[in-house]
Amino acid sequence: MAEIDSKWKKTALLVIDMQNDFILPGGPMLVKGGQAIVPNVIRAVEVARGRGIPIIWVVREHDPSGRDVELFRRHLYSPGKPKPTSKGSFGAELVDGLEIKGDDYKLVKTRFSAFFNTHLHSYLQGAGISNLVITGVQTPNCIRQTVFDAVALDYQSVTVIIDATAAATPEIHVANILDMNNIGVAAPTLAEWAESNT
Amino acid sequence: MAEIDSKWKKTALLVIDMQNDFILPGGPMLVKGGQAIVPNVIRAVEVARGRGIPIIWVVREHDPSGRDVELFRRHLYSPGKPKPTSKGSFGAELVDGLEIKGDDYKLVKTRFSAFFNTHLHSYLQGAGISNLVITGVQTPNCIRQTVFDAVALDYQSVTVIIDATAAATPEIHVANILDMNNIGVAAPTLAEWAESNT
Repeated sequence: MAEIDSKWKKTALLVIDMQNDFILPGGPMLVKGGQAIVPNVIRAVEVARGRGIPIIWVVREHDPSGRDVELFRRHLYSPGKPKPTSKGSFGAELVDGLEIKGDDYKLVKTRFSAFFNTHLHSYLQGAGISNLVITGVQTPNCIRQTVFDAVALDYQSVTVIIDATAAATPEIHVANILDMNNIGVAAPTLAEWAESNT
Repeated sequence: MAEIDSKWKKTALLVIDMQNDFILPGGPMLVKGGQAIVPNVIRAVEVARGRGIPIIWVVREHDPSGRDVELFRRHLYSPGKPKPTSKGSFGAELVDGLEIKGDDYKLVKTRFSAFFNTHLHSYLQGAGISNLVITGVQTPNCIRQTVFDAVALDYQSVTVIIDATAAATPEIHVANILDMNNIGVAAPTLAEWAESNT
């Protein structure tokens, strides 16, 4: 077991925004491709646990007043509006099948990138992590901004699991994967990643 | 004249990476769509000057050793390689027709986003700027990352001039403009922007 672990000791799995308000039908921030990838995200978490890879659950949690939300969607927090991923609400919870366990780490963000004004980078550096594997929603925003920041921060390897991430449409998903490939980011399928040994 | 200026006093124009190594045919970092937009970038600068809008010239300048370059392209700085936009080189200069003048501001960056590990945000805040107009290359990388950071930083208005920015292909350019539209970013043509009064 120690031998298996050592292969992955510099790797962390990020699971981004797999919350009810983004994923469930009728959710106020619905990402259309999101529900279809839930089984693969669950499986990615299982693979990571089996390898001893730490899991980092990145979620949005906003003040119900909207005062910590991006300007362009702050109107969603005015009276009578849905107030997506408000702290403590059902919409902010992880979807069924995904659960924070044991030594997992939870990180709250209020912008697209998991690195933007958070302590993620110092946490990962402190944990000796240089390789990131990324899952969740949605490809053009939180996934991509996290990925580009990781590249800018000189993470040695950044991997996006192509069928454990999703966007509003397949076209948007694929166009964003292409741009990420062009800056050296790998995009294996879940099966390829689960079988890979490096 | 003071009356004209007051309309634009919170606006700045960013011109990003319009350097020989990205734009000239055969350049080591050639962005294929770059040369075609040079006249429009020149014109955007003229319009901004006419309105009293400050111009911020954002450029890459790297140590010839490559030690300040992203990991995925550091190999371009090994012996015998082109060492793109090395500090002081011809490739790092602005293309013909673009020139830093008078009260313009020059900002050097080493990553995609003009905000990443630079003092751009504090500079703009100090200057009372809340509205950004963005031109240059290339759409999926330096343009988009700067735009997403500006949105995350709560700039009130972020505008990308659609025909004064460019990518390797029109498809990549358009896919990225779509994603930016989806987070509230305006993408007028240069003519539209030059005629707009707000």
